Amino acid sequence: MIIVLGIRTDLALEARELYKEREIPGVSIREEGEEGIKITRVKILDERGEKAMGKPVGDYITIEAPGLLERDLDLEERVAKVLANIISELAQLKKDSHVLVVGLGNWNVTPDALGPRVVSNIVVTRHLKEYAPLQFGDEIRSVSAFSPGVLGITGIETAEILKGVVDRVKPDLVITIDALASRRLERLSTTIQISNTGISPGSGVGNRRLSITSESLGVPVIAIGVPTVVDAVTIAHDTIEYLVKELSEQTSKESVFYKVLENMNKQEKYSLIEEVLSPYVQNLVVTPKEIDLLIKNIALVISRGINLALQPGLTEKEMNQLLH
Amino acid sequence: MIIVLGIRTDLALEARELYKEREIPGVSIREEGEEGIKITRVKILDERGEKAMGKPVGDYITIEAPGLLERDLDLEERVAKVLANIISELAQLKKDSHVLVVGLGNWNVTPDALGPRVVSNIVVTRHLKEYAPLQFGDEIRSVSAFSPGVLGITGIETAEILKGVVDRVKPDLVITIDALASRRLERLSTTIQISNTGISPGSGVGNRRLSITSESLGVPVIAIGVPTVVDAVTIAHDTIEYLVKELSEQTSKESVFYKVLENMNKQEKYSLIEEVLSPYVQNLVVTPKEIDLLIKNIALVISRGINLALQPGLTEKEMNQLLH
Amino acid sequence: MIIVLGIRTDLALEARELYKEREIPGVSIREEGEEGIKITRVKILDERGEKAMGKPVGDYITIEAPGLLERDLDLEERVAKVLANIISELAQLKKDSHVLVVGLGNWNVTPDALGPRVVSNIVVTRHLKEYAPLQFGDEIRSVSAFSPGVLGITGIETAEILKGVVDRVKPDLVITIDALASRRLERLSTTIQISNTGISPGSGVGNRRLSITSESLGVPVIAIGVPTVVDAVTIAHDTIEYLVKELSEQTSKESVFYKVLENMNKQEKYSLIEEVLSPYVQNLVVTPKEIDLLIKNIALVISRGINLALQPGLTEKEMNQLLH
Amino acid sequence: MIIVLGIRTDLALEARELYKEREIPGVSIREEGEEGIKITRVKILDERGEKAMGKPVGDYITIEAPGLLERDLDLEERVAKVLANIISELAQLKKDSHVLVVGLGNWNVTPDALGPRVVSNIVVTRHLKEYAPLQFGDEIRSVSAFSPGVLGITGIETAEILKGVVDRVKPDLVITIDALASRRLERLSTTIQISNTGISPGSGVGNRRLSITSESLGVPVIAIGVPTVVDAVTIAHDTIEYLVKELSEQTSKESVFYKVLENMNKQEKYSLIEEVLSPYVQNLVVTPKEIDLLIKNIALVISRGINLALQPGLTEKEMNQLLH
Repeated sequence: MIIVLGIRTDLALEARELYKEREIPGVSIREEGEEGIKITRVKILDERGEKAMGKPVGDYITIEAPGLLERDLDLEERVAKVLANIISELAQLKKDSHVLVVGLGNWNVTPDALGPRVVSNIVVTRHLKEYAPLQFGDEIRSVSAFSPGVLGITGIETAEILKGVVDRVKPDLVITIDALASRRLERLSTTIQISNTGISPGSGVGNRRLSITSESLGVPVIAIGVPTVVDAVTIAHDTIEYLVKELSEQTSKESVFYKVLENMNKQEKYSLIEEVLSPYVQNLVVTPKEIDLLIKNIALVISRGINLALQPGLTEKEMNQLLH
Repeated sequence: MIIVLGIRTDLALEARELYKEREIPGVSIREEGEEGIKITRVKILDERGEKAMGKPVGDYITIEAPGLLERDLDLEERVAKVLANIISELAQLKKDSHVLVVGLGNWNVTPDALGPRVVSNIVVTRHLKEYAPLQFGDEIRSVSAFSPGVLGITGIETAEILKGVVDRVKPDLVITIDALASRRLERLSTTIQISNTGISPGSGVGNRRLSITSESLGVPVIAIGVPTVVDAVTIAHDTIEYLVKELSEQTSKESVFYKVLENMNKQEKYSLIEEVLSPYVQNLVVTPKEIDLLIKNIALVISRGINLALQPGLTEKEMNQLLH
Repeated sequence: MIIVLGIRTDLALEARELYKEREIPGVSIREEGEEGIKITRVKILDERGEKAMGKPVGDYITIEAPGLLERDLDLEERVAKVLANIISELAQLKKDSHVLVVGLGNWNVTPDALGPRVVSNIVVTRHLKEYAPLQFGDEIRSVSAFSPGVLGITGIETAEILKGVVDRVKPDLVITIDALASRRLERLSTTIQISNTGISPGSGVGNRRLSITSESLGVPVIAIGVPTVVDAVTIAHDTIEYLVKELSEQTSKESVFYKVLENMNKQEKYSLIEEVLSPYVQNLVVTPKEIDLLIKNIALVISRGINLALQPGLTEKEMNQLLH
Repeated sequence: MIIVLGIRTDLALEARELYKEREIPGVSIREEGEEGIKITRVKILDERGEKAMGKPVGDYITIEAPGLLERDLDLEERVAKVLANIISELAQLKKDSHVLVVGLGNWNVTPDALGPRVVSNIVVTRHLKEYAPLQFGDEIRSVSAFSPGVLGITGIETAEILKGVVDRVKPDLVITIDALASRRLERLSTTIQISNTGISPGSGVGNRRLSITSESLGVPVIAIGVPTVVDAVTIAHDTIEYLVKELSEQTSKESVFYKVLENMNKQEKYSLIEEVLSPYVQNLVVTPKEIDLLIKNIALVISRGINLALQPGLTEKEMNQLLH
């Protein structure tokens, strides 16, 4: 997670944007896309990149599709396919690999419920291969899926439950899905980040406390995230920035006025924000009113993408039947 | 609904606060309370009061109980009793009065789902009195309840559906419950407004389009509302206000700087807010993350208060059995 | 509703089956179909037919598609289209007709929640045509939709709420959707009955008390129903029938034994059933464990069929966008 | 699980009833109770008892309270306290014991959702003791809780997930809650069985496949179960039994008739049942229509009982606040 002036973002893309003007050492960036879909591949190559971006070495691929707000089924299917290709590329699965899909987040909190919602639409097959190997043969990949809940619900760290299950079930790959915080309203439920570095402490809508990574779990981890909230702190902060910029432009750089604005330090800004958002401060989120619906839709796109990536041998019809 | 600088509030209490310094002509205000509960009675007496407050002549009673955030069952019960007393006072029911309880709002949108949630915990008796008059005798008041949905779900104005049902069922009193917008975060799900003036167009989280009043329905209406969101516009606006105030204090009233700030007009402020909240602007709400839970709790308090007011002849046990 | 030996069926098809051997006076029957779908058109022509079938004069069309249990998307789409055609045929809509879709049943009772579930997937347009007539022009038909709840929830007869809304909104056609009781387990969520006679008292899973018909509402009514339960009484009764038949075959028609079985009258059978099902008797239903899922699927098929029938001018994409 | 003539029961009480007439070797039975509550303590002492009862050595305590169907809050509280006492007695907890509460069953299948529903009302404290040990001191017992889902949802055996989590979290006691199958309709959601023997394969509404016992998990297990369904097979079977008994009484024991009935063997009966319940047979359950509500209520009673047993040091108010 990146925190700049108390503002959280879980997207590498947004960390990059803060450096917009110049090239970042230790980071390679490549953009591509198709109609209505922009794909940005951020590769953090070494320690310099880690330091600059505040995220570990690895691949961070972002799919942006603003049209997803408009329930365009064709676009949804194309985004799902792009997602499927990126997962396949990062995962490098073998035919007999077993994949565990994990829905992070709190199912009782609408904007944090993305992960559990995705899990409920995953084609789960591990038990079929185990109990009816003849009927469900080679064309099916072994997939299991579960949602571990959150600390406040279970009393157990998400990472601990996950570690317990992984040690027992021994998958070859873990795919996590999590709701993220973004800096930008236009990204809410229209942007998907896929990375092969796992999840850092403090990230996500629910602020996970422990890492969920290849190191901690002992198997490769692909983390899929979608921004579903902007912290209210971000809105307040941006308002200040815009206002200061606006005011600055109306006066000369030599004036006392300009200097006061220039000298407003982080602490002063934060105090101001704290006052505005009292008594809640850090716990407030900004969402569109129709957030329940937006999350439902993007969850379907993501589960579709995962299913396509993991079950290339299944026809449309077979997939639907297995989804019951 | 009150809109000041594009900022909505549905609470008469907050309209009053904008006039804090001086007495308001045509408005009487009385405060009372008990431990942890503050009751403010705003009475708009005449046209002067209507104009000053932006609300029609009538009673607006507000219960504030910040402790409701902490799941204090004892406080919840006391708030329910205070609410019951206020309803009884405004309603002046006879023994054989029939009351229709109406849950306004969209059950698919968490912060707008308050009304339907309250309705699902109302002790409904009209059919029992009709079909089993001997078993359910005089000690039960005839109560019916329903949630008409919202325009976007039904294609029909809420007020139209309600009018159709009222014309058919002919209750002696309608009690509506609705989620409101507030100016202040600390009021979210801790403040209850009860009024005998019905609901004006544009108010509520869902921005109802038509009036629901004694005039429109032909029977008395008591409207119960609870703030469940603050518009994001409000947060942005307050940030500007705080910042401008802060900056003003750091400079002399004669400086150019001060004058620039003083002269920032409403339009400039609004343009700024628009830029910050793009692409959503008016449709964004600020809520605590745990909004799902907060709404569940306050809905229980309100349904309890209504049940106590409408069924004084029932024991605790009878009430629970009827609630199944 | 047909009750034979205390066994309920809401399907004209099953009423017919009780007369399987011979032609029924005043009733015409026609069968057709396509792969995996059987369509039976029962037409009750006159009073003789009414008496024989226990249902009023009119059309009763049944779609049977046992394959629906297997989540075959292709079959689901074909069933939706067959349903759309039958609705169009019975409805005879004009371009500017306004249709009100009504989901009957109790959303809190899984097997009775079919109607409300269908309503939540109807393309609702009445408000769009009214508030944005230029944007949503002639290619859209005006459709509104709501779920009135049930007597136990609202205290108001479903038929009364519906009458109030119809009088106010004045649609040209009402389409109701209701969960039914069947005699046969294999029909559960695989059979759809469409009729132009409305709904009789006592029918449905929830045993509606009042008629919902063209006469009562003052506009044409198309009633769509799907069996979602078999009464436990039916299972007990069928067990007796099978056993008696079995025993009868093992003995000669002259024996005392045979005569005892032959003479077991309805009352004796019913007493036996009562004893088996005590303490619940009439309130028990038999369902597959996965009933929640089955209802979800068939609800999608039916809402799809209604949308296709009512909005022939919309493309797939437009329909999805309007469904948000 | 006990299967007699293809009829399942998960209750030791019902296994006992099949032996009603005589004393059972290796089994001690004690009855007690208070107003409206009957407690039966079945102790299986040795191998003879195991064989007779089809269940392992251990304690099986059953609480029967038919009045629970009537939403009597006073009775609910008394049943919760009886349950709390039985749990305390079986658990023998120390002050610093950590208890893991596990909700078995499928949250998507109404009658199987009991366990997950109970878990959602457990006072979870493990994280509070760990992260805020000073604030939440000795008066709180460390409790964690989760619902592992079922094989069909996760692709992983419930017992495997549970074993993984237990190995990681190392509780001192596991309490499971599960929905059971009963032979008797009057037991549905009015009877609670508590045992210290864990869960055998094949039991429960969801037919768990693997054992969940002290041996398999390595820590003591208390299993709480409530009947929520009767298999449809049971209803059909009972109908046959009643009918055969009825017919037998009408004829002399010497008649051919009587002998035919006497000689109807299990296979014949089962074939008959199969024919009646085709095409579903084993997968059909009988429930009251209001099952959704019944499960909600009994889940509250059980979570209340567990909370009282595990948190004797908390006041009512503290417990509610922790439950948020």
